Amino acid sequence: MREVRKGMLLVISGPSGAGKGTLYGKLLRDDPTMTFSVSYATRSPRPGEVDGRDYDFVDEEKFQRMVAEDGFLEYAAVHGHHYGTPRQPVMEALANGQNVMLDIDPQGALQVMERMPGCVSVFILPPSFAELRRRLEGRHTEQREEIERRLHNARGEVAQMNRYQYLLINDDVDAAYETLKDIVSAEKQRSVRYFPEMED
Amino acid sequence: MREVRKGMLLVISGPSGAGKGTLYGKLLRDDPTMTFSVSYATRSPRPGEVDGRDYDFVDEEKFQRMVAEDGFLEYAAVHGHHYGTPRQPVMEALANGQNVMLDIDPQGALQVMERMPGCVSVFILPPSFAELRRRLEGRHTEQREEIERRLHNARGEVAQMNRYQYLLINDDVDAAYETLKDIVSAEKQRSVRYFPEMED
Repeated sequence: MREVRKGMLLVISGPSGAGKGTLYGKLLRDDPTMTFSVSYATRSPRPGEVDGRDYDFVDEEKFQRMVAEDGFLEYAAVHGHHYGTPRQPVMEALANGQNVMLDIDPQGALQVMERMPGCVSVFILPPSFAELRRRLEGRHTEQREEIERRLHNARGEVAQMNRYQYLLINDDVDAAYETLKDIVSAEKQRSVRYFPEMED
Repeated sequence: MREVRKGMLLVISGPSGAGKGTLYGKLLRDDPTMTFSVSYATRSPRPGEVDGRDYDFVDEEKFQRMVAEDGFLEYAAVHGHHYGTPRQPVMEALANGQNVMLDIDPQGALQVMERMPGCVSVFILPPSFAELRRRLEGRHTEQREEIERRLHNARGEVAQMNRYQYLLINDDVDAAYETLKDIVSAEKQRSVRYFPEMED
C-alpha cells in the first residue's frame, strides 16, 4: 500500500443561496488536508479583502495572457470582471498529495469537471425554490431584479445537477455538513488515490 | 428531486482474516436501509444454522439448474460444495430502492463487479501480512496447512485490490467501521441513485 495518496480535487457548486460557502468554510477549518485555491480576479479589492488571500488581483492584460496560455482550469466573466481558477497551483498541490477544494459557480464547475474528470463534484441543493427565494431575500444585499435573476439562473443550474457525482440537499446545515464530511472521508479511500494510473 | 432513490449494491470483500465479517455485521445492525442477501449453498446446515436465514440450502441438482438459468450473480466451489448469490432477490430489492450488502470472497466479488458495474465495491485490507497471519493463527479454527493456503491466497487477492472502488485498511476496527459508514453515507448521495438512467 502506497503511503502517499494522490490529492483530491473537490468541486463544490450549487446555485447562489444554496449555502455552499458555509459548508466550504467549515470543511476548510476542520480538515487540515484541504487547501484553498485562490482565484484570480480583475476587479479591485473590496474593503477588507487581501490580495493573495481572498483573490489574486490582476489586471485584464495579465488575465488575458493567462487565458492565452491555458493557465486557468475555469474562468468566467461576472458583471464585466473576470474571475478564474489558476491551473498550476492546483496541479502542484494535487501532485504533492494535498487535497484542493474549489467553491465555484455551476458554470465554472462544469468547465472543471470536463477538464479534470478525476475530480470529486458535489452539487449543493436548496431544499426548494421557495426556500432559495427566502434565503436570497433574507440577505438584504441584492436588489429585487438581481434576486429574480439568481432564481432564474438557479432553475437552469439545478436542471444540470445530474452532471455532478454527488447531490447534497442543504436543508439543515449541520446535517448537510456531516454528509459532506462523509463524502470527503469516503473519497479519501478511493483506490484511484492509491493507484493514480487507473484514473481516466 | 426524486423521492425514491435506486438501491445500492454494496460489495464488501477482502482476504480471509481481514475482518470483513465484523464490519459487515455491524453495518447490517446499524443501518436499517441495508438488507442481507442470503446465499445458496449445496452443503448441509451446520449446527445452529437455519435454512433461509444463514443460507438457502439446496441440492446440487437445483443449484446447477440455477446456474444454467443464469440465476446467480456469482457462484463458486469451495471444498467440493457450491455457494452462490441468487440474482433475482437482489435485483428486486434494488429496484424497490433497498440497499443490498454482499459479503463475499474476492473471486465472487470480481464476478459481481463485472456483472453489476453500478455496484459499490470495498476491499478490506489487513494492516499487514504479518497481522493477517496473527489473526488466522489466533482463530485456532484452521490447520496450519489451511492457514498457509489462506495467506497464499491473500497475496493474490491483495494484488487485485485496484479493481475495487474503495480500499479500507482494517487496522483499528472502530475506525475502519466509521470509514465504512462514511462510504455508505456518501454513496447514498450519488446522483446516479436519483438519476438511474445515467448508470452504465
